[in-house]
Amino acid sequence: MGIIVQKFGGSSVADTEKLFNVCEHVLKAYNEGNGVVVVVSAQGKTTDKLIAEEAEISNKPTKREHDVLVATGEQITIAKLAMCLNKLGHKAVSYMGWQVPIITDGVFGEARIKKIDTAKIMKDLDEGTIVVVAGFQGVSEKGDITTFGRGGSDTTAVALAAALKADKCEIFTDVDGVFSADPRIVEDAIKIETMTYDEMLELSSSGAKVLHNRCVEIAKNFEMPIVVKSSFEKESTGTLVDRYDKMEGLHIGGIAVMNDVSKVTLLGMADRIGETYKIFKILSENDINIDIIAQSRGEHAPKDVSFSIGTEDLEKTIDLLDNNTEGLEYTEIKYFTNLSKISLVGVGIANTPGVAASMFEALSECNINMRLISTSEIKISVLIDENKAERAMKAIHEKLTLGKHLV
Amino acid sequence: MGIIVQKFGGSSVADTEKLFNVCEHVLKAYNEGNGVVVVVSAQGKTTDKLIAEEAEISNKPTKREHDVLVATGEQITIAKLAMCLNKLGHKAVSYMGWQVPIITDGVFGEARIKKIDTAKIMKDLDEGTIVVVAGFQGVSEKGDITTFGRGGSDTTAVALAAALKADKCEIFTDVDGVFSADPRIVEDAIKIETMTYDEMLELSSSGAKVLHNRCVEIAKNFEMPIVVKSSFEKESTGTLVDRYDKMEGLHIGGIAVMNDVSKVTLLGMADRIGETYKIFKILSENDINIDIIAQSRGEHAPKDVSFSIGTEDLEKTIDLLDNNTEGLEYTEIKYFTNLSKISLVGVGIANTPGVAASMFEALSECNINMRLISTSEIKISVLIDENKAERAMKAIHEKLTLGKHLV
Repeated sequence: MGIIVQKFGGSSVADTEKLFNVCEHVLKAYNEGNGVVVVVSAQGKTTDKLIAEEAEISNKPTKREHDVLVATGEQITIAKLAMCLNKLGHKAVSYMGWQVPIITDGVFGEARIKKIDTAKIMKDLDEGTIVVVAGFQGVSEKGDITTFGRGGSDTTAVALAAALKADKCEIFTDVDGVFSADPRIVEDAIKIETMTYDEMLELSSSGAKVLHNRCVEIAKNFEMPIVVKSSFEKESTGTLVDRYDKMEGLHIGGIAVMNDVSKVTLLGMADRIGETYKIFKILSENDINIDIIAQSRGEHAPKDVSFSIGTEDLEKTIDLLDNNTEGLEYTEIKYFTNLSKISLVGVGIANTPGVAASMFEALSECNINMRLISTSEIKISVLIDENKAERAMKAIHEKLTLGKHLV
Repeated sequence: MGIIVQKFGGSSVADTEKLFNVCEHVLKAYNEGNGVVVVVSAQGKTTDKLIAEEAEISNKPTKREHDVLVATGEQITIAKLAMCLNKLGHKAVSYMGWQVPIITDGVFGEARIKKIDTAKIMKDLDEGTIVVVAGFQGVSEKGDITTFGRGGSDTTAVALAAALKADKCEIFTDVDGVFSADPRIVEDAIKIETMTYDEMLELSSSGAKVLHNRCVEIAKNFEMPIVVKSSFEKESTGTLVDRYDKMEGLHIGGIAVMNDVSKVTLLGMADRIGETYKIFKILSENDINIDIIAQSRGEHAPKDVSFSIGTEDLEKTIDLLDNNTEGLEYTEIKYFTNLSKISLVGVGIANTPGVAASMFEALSECNINMRLISTSEIKISVLIDENKAERAMKAIHEKLTLGKHLV
């Protein structure tokens, strides 16, 4: 018997009708002879509603109790989905994280999985029972409920698939896979049939809200194939995320956009080893994430350092650098806000001559200024003005879509 | 350090303002030097809402999953109440039934408590932490969530109090204790200061919706004093329920009403030993509860047997007796519906001459027909027409209120 883990997000389980729709996907896999484990999120806006109620109590609620509160969302879904499957005449059983158990490191709100005990689930599967597991949560060794942070149901699904040595992990969502660009913006965006874990990681951290990064990391570590597909389209084949050497056929990259980005530049920094590190130290100690970083300098001349951050962190960043306690030396701080980061992701980028050139050409043809550039083995990112992001995306997509593949 | 267990029902925790109101009661007991354990129900109409959603899925939902679903109601409340106490600067921690753990016999929907492990809670109390426990739920030895049925939070509170050897268990509700009659109907109803466990048991099973019967049984077994008081009136002294020999001062009984009662009479039953038992056998095997039972017969003549049941069971009862498979012999079935049961409860009833006579006199003065009568050591119950129940209650209350006590 093969095992398939299926994960359904909040919009896929939002009401009773949708829960019965989920049953169709589950029973299809089950009737094909697989053991099926289903991981679900909280229904629709349930988590948001709980968090709004929590805000009435405190603007800084205790993390332990926050986890107890929000974990109820998934608990409601598992009970209902198991009931739906029972109603349809099938054996199904629901488990919270603590019942599996999914043991975590005990960090409230952003726990990491340490261990999954699969004995209970394996016994159920052997008996032909469909197992429904609450996503997003586990239990610490001390016995406290701990959640994984938003998007953590993906992590539950992939980690369970790895622990159960499943054939694959199917992530059902409201779109038919991963696209070469956001189809709501770029009309002729193409669905990507297959991509590597690294591409998926780069796309996720570049703003494509398809999969939670941690879940892709786990999938990569355990070489667990992930299929991202639509829960609403019956014939959805989705996108397969897998190892590079298992990729077949045409390989297509993707474009992602991240908005609300700001760029900060420190002018005239002392040209000493360790000066740039101080910027990171000050900001990371205050939970501010630096994304792109670039520096330019002449020999023995003062250097300039630019980096990008989320705009929500801009004020705090300027304050921290103004009042820096690390002896950071510079002459002036400048910043630009209302920027977007456009990223082109694809395995071939570094080895395919002209990809970066084509991307920059597309932007210059639209008269779009690139404020910061960063490249890696499989990604090129540029910061541009936010109000030009859509135009940039379309232009790059058009320029690079020669025939039917991007990179 | 003394220990007090406080229980707050759904209306006492219905919103954020009420949760902070609950904190005042909790902190009052805490600041008086007690270890405080708080047991809470689901907020307001939460459980009803979950059950309505469940009905969309199935009219006969799986019992196991039903328990998983409804248990979320209390989980939400404990997280929020612990957050409120934290917000006010106090150490507080929430526990679901499985975290304490409260071990049950594993019967879904109507589990009974087998064992409570108090080590975790005692450690918290020793450290000055307030403990907030989800009412109404425990965990089976197999690790399944099991609930106690509605009103089960009272049971959680009293059982925890007994296990922790608490000084008392305070049940907070929306009225200031137990009254000699429903104050919404009988204007001059008197609050009862003290009553025995047995009186409380009789009142509860007679229709007074104050305490869950099982919780009073546990309190009686463990001789745990219960105080029923108002969560909304600051100066509420409430009603103390305790052992008879600990009662002080004037002793007042109470009147309770139960509506939607029907009476069934089997005429001309065979006068054999075991014939009446057959009625009970047939009905109890089909989960129908017989309340009052009365039979009349002459020597060696056919006998008539009358009994009362809830009207919701009437149709099923008639069907079962019509199609009886036990060889029950009788000539005719008659029934009356739209009846109420009026009960007068008080320790002195059997020993106080004239109590029954006064009650019956009050009814006859109002021209109210008694359709069935049952008496015990501490209770007299009569069935009357439902539309005369309020009048009957007032008349009995007035007749028996000589000065300020009933019985």
